[in-house]
Amino acid sequence: MIGRLNHVAIAVADLAAAAATYRNTLGAKVSEPEAIAEHGVTVVFVELPNTKIELLEPLGEASPIAGFVAKNPAGGIHHLCYEVEDILAARDTLKAAGARVLGDGEPKIGAHGKPVLFLHPKDFNGALVELEQA
Amino acid sequence: MIGRLNHVAIAVADLAAAAATYRNTLGAKVSEPEAIAEHGVTVVFVELPNTKIELLEPLGEASPIAGFVAKNPAGGIHHLCYEVEDILAARDTLKAAGARVLGDGEPKIGAHGKPVLFLHPKDFNGALVELEQA
Repeated sequence: MIGRLNHVAIAVADLAAAAATYRNTLGAKVSEPEAIAEHGVTVVFVELPNTKIELLEPLGEASPIAGFVAKNPAGGIHHLCYEVEDILAARDTLKAAGARVLGDGEPKIGAHGKPVLFLHPKDFNGALVELEQA
Repeated sequence: MIGRLNHVAIAVADLAAAAATYRNTLGAKVSEPEAIAEHGVTVVFVELPNTKIELLEPLGEASPIAGFVAKNPAGGIHHLCYEVEDILAARDTLKAAGARVLGDGEPKIGAHGKPVLFLHPKDFNGALVELEQA
């Protein structure tokens, strides 16, 4: 069912510093910051040859990553995003297998303009998993 | 400097269960477990089209991931591995930039038979980073 690893998301308190680490220290290609108000994050994309790292900073008081960053002030790996061909079919298969889909179980339009769902980390080895319809 | 994301490592207490989650629930191609005594882990490779997920279980009392799994009994994302062309050049550049290289700073032969180094998570947004000479 799952296809490519679309991205690894790292949540940070200071996006400018994190972007500088990837651009200058690790010598990667890093995009300009993009504020995505409806998702409560400002994001920078680290473009690797085979996938992306997304550096996320909380934006606004209702940011879904505010709690994570408060608990991990130095930052931390927040989630992994796998691509699927058909997100509704994937959801139904996962639910039938007993996996918990977060929220109301309906796909939302994610930061890339595509339907996404999040899966409970306790069902996936402690890793928060995002599925994105590719 | 950094190239491909070689793998994401997830450390777990129960490798058979984690492998079954990826094979059966997420429908991925999963290898048979491989015990790597000199690295203190048993590993299963989840082969995605563009990269790998490595599921790691502690092996032996001196396993370098035993403490992590004790702290995260449900499992958790342990590290990210980026490929570099020249690991000694990468190390020297990183050290000059003030990043901390773990251990004695000399590359070891990693689980794939290639030279690797680990970088301090506090210098990389809370993420433990492995560099592997590709």
